[in-house]
Amino acid sequence: MSKKKFARESATIMTEMVLPNDTNTLNNLMGGRLMHWLDVVAAIAAQKHSNRIVVTASADSISFKQPIALGNVVTLTAKVTRAFNSSMEVFIEVTAEDIPANKKTTTHRAFFTFVAVDQNGKPIEVPEVVPETEEEIELFEGALRRRQLRLVLAKRMKPEEAVELKSIFNLDVDK
Amino acid sequence: MSKKKFARESATIMTEMVLPNDTNTLNNLMGGRLMHWLDVVAAIAAQKHSNRIVVTASADSISFKQPIALGNVVTLTAKVTRAFNSSMEVFIEVTAEDIPANKKTTTHRAFFTFVAVDQNGKPIEVPEVVPETEEEIELFEGALRRRQLRLVLAKRMKPEEAVELKSIFNLDVDK
Amino acid sequence: MSKKKFARESATIMTEMVLPNDTNTLNNLMGGRLMHWLDVVAAIAAQKHSNRIVVTASADSISFKQPIALGNVVTLTAKVTRAFNSSMEVFIEVTAEDIPANKKTTTHRAFFTFVAVDQNGKPIEVPEVVPETEEEIELFEGALRRRQLRLVLAKRMKPEEAVELKSIFNLDVDK
Amino acid sequence: MSKKKFARESATIMTEMVLPNDTNTLNNLMGGRLMHWLDVVAAIAAQKHSNRIVVTASADSISFKQPIALGNVVTLTAKVTRAFNSSMEVFIEVTAEDIPANKKTTTHRAFFTFVAVDQNGKPIEVPEVVPETEEEIELFEGALRRRQLRLVLAKRMKPEEAVELKSIFNLDVDK
Amino acid sequence: MSKKKFARESATIMTEMVLPNDTNTLNNLMGGRLMHWLDVVAAIAAQKHSNRIVVTASADSISFKQPIALGNVVTLTAKVTRAFNSSMEVFIEVTAEDIPANKKTTTHRAFFTFVAVDQNGKPIEVPEVVPETEEEIELFEGALRRRQLRLVLAKRMKPEEAVELKSIFNLDVDK
Amino acid sequence: MSKKKFARESATIMTEMVLPNDTNTLNNLMGGRLMHWLDVVAAIAAQKHSNRIVVTASADSISFKQPIALGNVVTLTAKVTRAFNSSMEVFIEVTAEDIPANKKTTTHRAFFTFVAVDQNGKPIEVPEVVPETEEEIELFEGALRRRQLRLVLAKRMKPEEAVELKSIFNLDVDK
Repeated sequence: MSKKKFARESATIMTEMVLPNDTNTLNNLMGGRLMHWLDVVAAIAAQKHSNRIVVTASADSISFKQPIALGNVVTLTAKVTRAFNSSMEVFIEVTAEDIPANKKTTTHRAFFTFVAVDQNGKPIEVPEVVPETEEEIELFEGALRRRQLRLVLAKRMKPEEAVELKSIFNLDVDK
Repeated sequence: MSKKKFARESATIMTEMVLPNDTNTLNNLMGGRLMHWLDVVAAIAAQKHSNRIVVTASADSISFKQPIALGNVVTLTAKVTRAFNSSMEVFIEVTAEDIPANKKTTTHRAFFTFVAVDQNGKPIEVPEVVPETEEEIELFEGALRRRQLRLVLAKRMKPEEAVELKSIFNLDVDK
Repeated sequence: MSKKKFARESATIMTEMVLPNDTNTLNNLMGGRLMHWLDVVAAIAAQKHSNRIVVTASADSISFKQPIALGNVVTLTAKVTRAFNSSMEVFIEVTAEDIPANKKTTTHRAFFTFVAVDQNGKPIEVPEVVPETEEEIELFEGALRRRQLRLVLAKRMKPEEAVELKSIFNLDVDK
Repeated sequence: MSKKKFARESATIMTEMVLPNDTNTLNNLMGGRLMHWLDVVAAIAAQKHSNRIVVTASADSISFKQPIALGNVVTLTAKVTRAFNSSMEVFIEVTAEDIPANKKTTTHRAFFTFVAVDQNGKPIEVPEVVPETEEEIELFEGALRRRQLRLVLAKRMKPEEAVELKSIFNLDVDK
Repeated sequence: MSKKKFARESATIMTEMVLPNDTNTLNNLMGGRLMHWLDVVAAIAAQKHSNRIVVTASADSISFKQPIALGNVVTLTAKVTRAFNSSMEVFIEVTAEDIPANKKTTTHRAFFTFVAVDQNGKPIEVPEVVPETEEEIELFEGALRRRQLRLVLAKRMKPEEAVELKSIFNLDVDK
Repeated sequence: MSKKKFARESATIMTEMVLPNDTNTLNNLMGGRLMHWLDVVAAIAAQKHSNRIVVTASADSISFKQPIALGNVVTLTAKVTRAFNSSMEVFIEVTAEDIPANKKTTTHRAFFTFVAVDQNGKPIEVPEVVPETEEEIELFEGALRRRQLRLVLAKRMKPEEAVELKSIFNLDVDK
């Protein structure tokens, strides 16, 4: 992993309009449709960072608090936060706008991970991420903790080994 | 929440064929497409349990280990595991079949939560879930723990109050 | 055709939600959209029975008596009824549910036939169907009659040779 | 049914290109997709004849002998053949062209019926059809026989009453 | 370019129904959706003329004066007007019908150009167009002028060389 | 038109991946699909400038020189250049990236115009555009010339009145 790239080099913006077929009975965007968009924009960001074919490795838990209405314009902004060998964590921020009403809300903040692969689907190393802004640095640092949580939840790491993770739970197990 | 319904009454099966537009460059199903299907089948299960309009409240983290190929038949089986006032947890199991090759694999086990709402989008109470089989009982019992994890991750519950959650992390903070 | 398979081994359930683009001016499901779904679910059932690529050979006549409304959940259940060398008849039952209104109706009973083919599109023999339940046995027996009707309608069999068919028309031409 | 209209006034031509998502594993058009197109073009022809909202009443049996390949141009030509109070029979002819290969084949001849309805979905009378060409006259005359077959198959007419139908089966039951 | 074909041999008719997902907030057809249809029908006409794979070379400017409403039937009629070596100009006329209201309007007249290519995407000569009707002759003659306008606008021809074009602007630069 | 807004306030970025159904026989993006995307991104930019419902008024001529391949990532960047009462001109720049090959090309520069309307579809005045960067100023100034060309081509302005337009053609008709 000798090569390095700035976080901003992977920045990807996707804009979608909520159409009738994307909505439920209450005329609000269906959650699954949004997850589809999240996956697409995040995959493109991971492609830009790695210049490779990428496959989705995981999606972190996501909650849907605010409904997004039919006709709203949804903007998804994705950026790679940190790389671990062949895998990359991508942060996506979602805003929804009711443009005629001049209302814009940040509705979601989500994390997906991707693995860069070669033509045969074999994992392949990617460049390191160099964060620059304060937000990028914070996301870079938090990536380790979120990764441990993913591994613990997937039962691929023992909780007591998840040193970074403890801060989430404010636990000091050593005491 | 006087009314009760059996878990099996919400059972919903969805079958999808992986078409060209659902796949990435390696001809495998895109993660976002699968998440879309998960949301739809789980929403229908939640509707069946509550006989109400439902909106997605959250999707738990999900990992994508096995690629699902173009032409595969994907079967998604969803069932409500437990209800909490107006919200329901739904468990979805995904299998992918390469039918000509006679190969069938369970590829995913996912959890989504939904809220039952009235015509104005206001939350409304749903029946309790009565689990019958061993798997349904296990899912019913685990629902409490998964709910605490969701609340902690969403920063709506303090980790030290998440009594049920501790078992996931094998932590005994009282010691 | 030495191999045999149970009818139930091909059982396939597909669940669809009626979305805006599936409906006509009266907000009811368009007939052509339903036929598309029938073909997909029946093709998967035929694939499961034969473990082969299958191509649609015919769709029997179908009538649309009850409108299925926007937002309804449509469940299509398909099962192979009988095999004839390389061809299979599939029976599909369709139910439509207005879940918030707690109304469920069986709206259609349809028959499609499929041919199993190899990679070059050449027909290839499939296992025999072993019916078990009363309904499966009835469908198995009726398959011969429906097959003759298809052949007569396609002008590939002379009506006087369609011995089984006569029962449909209550005709006793020998008298 | 005082008003009359010529058959040709309902003539509707639809052209579709076979795209990847319309095809099966052998890269041929899926039967269900074609049925969807048949329904749409026939519905428009029925609308043109009746100047009303129309709903699909039935699709006659259809067989799929020739595969239609990816990239082919499919032309569907529909025309109302005859009206019966509020219902109309529509004849659709399908041709498939591999244009670079300069090959054009008539692949299907299908019949659908539609009912004209008012805004509340109540059936409403439509104009009579006036056939002009030899083919239109033949289709007009055959419509009665096909209608009896539909009624017999739907068990809404006794076979012995289906006077016109007998000619299909070359049966002379009176003997 | 020894071979010749009549303009009418390329005539292609496409019929589309305006569905919910095709419309904007005012329930009118989105301009981009119509342009997509124009491209498809014109490409098929160019294919028919050349019996070749064709790629879109340009779309002339188009204005959208009349809204086309949800539920309208849109008919697009395309015909090759003239060929220039490997390129073809296609004229498309669009009518929109509100069938229940018995209103039909010609909404657009558009021009697209296509290039015929071989399997490697290399341009390849196409037959000359033989116009027959008065309209075809007029379109054939105007094609030269429109071609010069395209070249001038694309800065591939100097305005003073665009002899034919001058008539559009009623300019007599020689004076 | 008392209110003013900066050009950058309407900036909209849309990212699309070229999927199988978007491509022609040569596996390149179909022109009509791109025009559809252009219309959507430009409409959103016009909405952002006007905070109104907008309808497409016209699309300027566009040429397709470089093929965009299956799997490419297409980025469309739109910005309002200038407003004329209720109408707005939008400039869109399109880049296509083959990310694994690390190749990025600007493939198109297009202009669309939109009209802001109220709920009844009646045109309504929009804010003036304030250009800031050199490119924005150049686009602002060229807008007048392009507008005259549109009016002349639509035969709504006499060429001799199109003072600004003359510069395109390098014509000095006064001599």
